[in-house]
Amino acid sequence: MPLKDPTPEFLSELAHVTDVISPIAKYLEEPRGRYNGRAIGVVRPCTVSEVSNIVKICNTHKIGIVPYGGGTGLVGGQTSIDGPEPIVLSLEKLNAIRDVDSTDNIIVAEAGVILANIQNAADTVNRFFPLSLASEGSCQIGGNLSTNAGGLNVLRYGNARDLCVGIEAVLPDGSIYNGLKRLRKDNTGYNIRNLIVGAEGTLGIITAASLRLMPKPVEVETAFISVRDPQAALEVLGLMSAQLGEVISAFELIHHQGLEFLEETGIEFSKPLSGTPEWMVLLECGAGRNSNLKDNLEQLLVDALDSSQITDAVLAQNEAQRQAFWQIRETIPEANKRIGVVSSHDVSVPISKVPEFIRAADKMIQAINPQLRINCFGHLGDGNLHYNIYPPKGEDRSGYVDIRHEIANSVYELVNEFDGSFSAEHGIGRMKKTDLQKYGNPAKLAAMRAIKSALDPNGIMNPGAVI
Amino acid sequence: MPLKDPTPEFLSELAHVTDVISPIAKYLEEPRGRYNGRAIGVVRPCTVSEVSNIVKICNTHKIGIVPYGGGTGLVGGQTSIDGPEPIVLSLEKLNAIRDVDSTDNIIVAEAGVILANIQNAADTVNRFFPLSLASEGSCQIGGNLSTNAGGLNVLRYGNARDLCVGIEAVLPDGSIYNGLKRLRKDNTGYNIRNLIVGAEGTLGIITAASLRLMPKPVEVETAFISVRDPQAALEVLGLMSAQLGEVISAFELIHHQGLEFLEETGIEFSKPLSGTPEWMVLLECGAGRNSNLKDNLEQLLVDALDSSQITDAVLAQNEAQRQAFWQIRETIPEANKRIGVVSSHDVSVPISKVPEFIRAADKMIQAINPQLRINCFGHLGDGNLHYNIYPPKGEDRSGYVDIRHEIANSVYELVNEFDGSFSAEHGIGRMKKTDLQKYGNPAKLAAMRAIKSALDPNGIMNPGAVI
Repeated sequence: MPLKDPTPEFLSELAHVTDVISPIAKYLEEPRGRYNGRAIGVVRPCTVSEVSNIVKICNTHKIGIVPYGGGTGLVGGQTSIDGPEPIVLSLEKLNAIRDVDSTDNIIVAEAGVILANIQNAADTVNRFFPLSLASEGSCQIGGNLSTNAGGLNVLRYGNARDLCVGIEAVLPDGSIYNGLKRLRKDNTGYNIRNLIVGAEGTLGIITAASLRLMPKPVEVETAFISVRDPQAALEVLGLMSAQLGEVISAFELIHHQGLEFLEETGIEFSKPLSGTPEWMVLLECGAGRNSNLKDNLEQLLVDALDSSQITDAVLAQNEAQRQAFWQIRETIPEANKRIGVVSSHDVSVPISKVPEFIRAADKMIQAINPQLRINCFGHLGDGNLHYNIYPPKGEDRSGYVDIRHEIANSVYELVNEFDGSFSAEHGIGRMKKTDLQKYGNPAKLAAMRAIKSALDPNGIMNPGAVI
Repeated sequence: MPLKDPTPEFLSELAHVTDVISPIAKYLEEPRGRYNGRAIGVVRPCTVSEVSNIVKICNTHKIGIVPYGGGTGLVGGQTSIDGPEPIVLSLEKLNAIRDVDSTDNIIVAEAGVILANIQNAADTVNRFFPLSLASEGSCQIGGNLSTNAGGLNVLRYGNARDLCVGIEAVLPDGSIYNGLKRLRKDNTGYNIRNLIVGAEGTLGIITAASLRLMPKPVEVETAFISVRDPQAALEVLGLMSAQLGEVISAFELIHHQGLEFLEETGIEFSKPLSGTPEWMVLLECGAGRNSNLKDNLEQLLVDALDSSQITDAVLAQNEAQRQAFWQIRETIPEANKRIGVVSSHDVSVPISKVPEFIRAADKMIQAINPQLRINCFGHLGDGNLHYNIYPPKGEDRSGYVDIRHEIANSVYELVNEFDGSFSAEHGIGRMKKTDLQKYGNPAKLAAMRAIKSALDPNGIMNPGAVI
C-alpha cells in the first residue's frame, strides 16, 4: 500500500484533532547535517489519545508519520528524505513525569521528558537512573527507548531496553497499547514492549514508559589510568570484575588522539596523567557504604602497575576532579566534530576480540591512506568502539569525501569478520539501511519485514527508516 | 490454514530426514498431571539443520510441532491436547556447550543443555550463571528461554531473557536465524530475539543461545529472618538496597504455613529460627572480596531489630547451614505437592502493593471458605508471589475441585485490580489462554495475533498454546 500525498480532507480531519504547525527547520534537521528533511507539517500532541487520533487519521489517508523526540539521533531516523511528505509528530508536549516511586523503584515518564530530567527526578527520591549519554540535556526518553540508547553505564546497568519494564504506545492502527505495568516479572504473552523499543518509530509511537530505578551508589570512585594497550585494559577489567563484582559502571577506552584533538580545537582540559600515554581508561565504580571500595580499587591498581598492565593511575580526590575526568571523555565528541570526521563507525565486537580488531582496523586504514588520523574511543567494557577517521592535521575533510564510502565499507567488513555489529548503539535510521540489508541475517530480515507488514500494513510509521 | 493429519507422504519425508520414535508417555505428560498429550511421534534432532529440515517438512504438510525441553513447565505448554496430532520435537540431543569464555563472559549452549550443567560450566571458569530454579537439575535452557524462566535471582540478575544476548533459532518456515552474537550492544533492527524468547515455542524453536556470565561473588551471606509482616520485609529490603547497593540476590518471603507443610508431609528440615514466626524472609547477598559484607549486613539487621521491623535473624555460619536454609525454601514446593493444591497462582504485583494484596487476598479466600489453607511464598523482591490454596488439614483436595475455578478467578481479578500479572514467571501455555484473552491488553493481543500469523501462517508452531 503506497503512501499518499495529503488531500484537503486529510488536512481538515487532522486540523480537527490537533494543531498543525509549519515545518520549521528544527524538525527537519539532524545533528550531522547529512539529510534535509521535508514534512507536510508538525503536530505536537499533548495526550496519548491525541496521538491516537492523529495516527488513525494518517493511517486512513495513508500519510506517513515521522516520530520526533529530541532530534539528537545520529543515523537520520528523525528525517524523511524521500517518498510522499509525512507529518512530523513531536512528543515534546507529552512531557510529564507521572510517578516516581522509591519502593517499586520505578519512574513513569512520558516520551517527551528530557533524559536529564528523569535522572534528576530519580535523584530526588535517592535513586539512580543509569542511562547517561552525551546528549542527555536535550534527548528525550521516548527517543532513547525507540533507539535503545546505550551510553556510559551499559556495562553495569544495560541499555535503555534493559531499564524499561513497561511502555504505553500508539500502534500503527491508532490503537493504544497500555503496557505501563511496573513489574519485574510478567510472562503474559509475546514481548511486544521489546519489539517496539528499538524499532526506531517504525512499529508505533512510544508515549510513556515505566523505567527502573537503581540504588544510588553511596561511594563512587573514578580513576584515570594509562594502560599498556587495549589487551592490558581488558585484563584489568577482568580482574576487577572477578574481585570486586558488578561495581564497575564505566570502563571507557580513550586514545591519546582524543586528547590531541581537544588541544587542537582549543577545548580546555586538565591533563589527567603525566606524559602522553597512547591508551587510557576512564574507570568508574560505585558501591554501598562501608565497602572498602577505595582501598580495594587502589590495591588492584597497584597490582596492575606491578604486572605492567597499567603504567599510571590517578584516583579522583574530590567531585571537582571527578568532573574534570569526565569532562575529558564527554568533550571528545565535540572536539571530533570541530575536526570534522571523514567517516565515523559505532561498532561492537566481542570484548575478547577488541585488541585484535583495533590492530587490524588500524592497519587497514593505514593501507587506505597513511595520513588519515584515527580516534578510537568508547565503551570498552561493552566491546563498543567509536572508531572514527579524521583528515591529516591542518587539512579539511572535504578532500577525503571520495574515500568515505571505502573506509566505512572496509570497517564494516572487518567488524563482520569479527562477529561484531555495524551499529552498536546508534541504530539503523536511514543511514545504515543498506548495511542492514548487507550484513543482517536473512531469516531475521525476513521476520522483520513480515512483522512490519503485519503491524503497519500501510507503512505509515517512520517510512523509509530501518527497513 | 488449518493443520492436517499426517499423510503417508509426510511420514515418508520425515523419516527421510530424522528418526521418528513412538510417543512414549514421558513426552506427553506434564508435572501437574492436568493434561494428557498426544502426538504422531517424537523426533530428537542432533543438529540445527536437522531441526530445520523437520520444520520445513511439517510446514509444507501443515503438521503441528510441539517443541519439548525438560518437560518441567507448569502451564501445559509442552502438551498438545486438541486439534490434529502434532510431532513432538525434543531438543535433548542438541546438548553441547559450544563455548565458555571468561573474557567475553559468555557461554554458548545448545537448547537441550540442562540448566545445572550450564551453572557448572560457568563455575569452571570462575563465573556465575545466575538463572536458578527448583527444576534446574532437569529443565533445559531452551525451555528456560522459551518460557522466560524467572526463579530465585531475578532481583539482582533478571529473568532468563535478561541473561540472553543471542539465539540461534529455526523459524516456522524452517529458516535458520543465526543470531548467536556475543555482544552487549547491537542495535541492528528489530529485537527478534526477545520476541522468540518467551514465546513458548509458538514463533520458532530456539536451538542454541549466547548467555551472560557474571562475576562469581567472592563472599556470600545468607540469613533467615523473621519479619513483623510483609510491609516490614519490604522496608528492610528498601533499606538494604539503599545502603548496600545491588548485592541482594535473593529476598524470598516464606509464610509459616510452608514450614507446617514440611512437618505435615514428613520432609525433614532444621528449624532456622526459634518460635513460630508468621512471616520469614530468606535473604542472600553476594559481594566482592574485602567488602565488609558480613559486618554491614549484621549492622542492618541489628538496626531492623531495634526498629521492630524484624524480630529475629540468623546468619548462616557455614556452607552447610546455608544449604539447610535453602533446603527449606526449595522443598516447600515438594511439600505443597504432597498436600495437594486446590488452586495455585503464580502472580506478581508492584512490590509496594504486595502487603495490601496479601491482606485483600487472604480476606477474599476466607470469604470463599474459611477452612482453606493459604501458603503464600515467593520472590518478594520481584513482587512475585506463589499464592496457593490448600484444603483443610486432614482433608484431600478432591472435595474442593468445584471451587477451584472460583478461587482462581477471584485471585486473578484481584491481581488485575492491583495492576499485577496473572502469570509472573510460568507463562501462558495451554492453562492460562483464557486468562490472557480476559486480562490481556486488546492492542497487545491484536499485535500478538498479527505477529503469529505473519511468522507462522500455517500455525504449525506449538499449536494451541499461548494464542
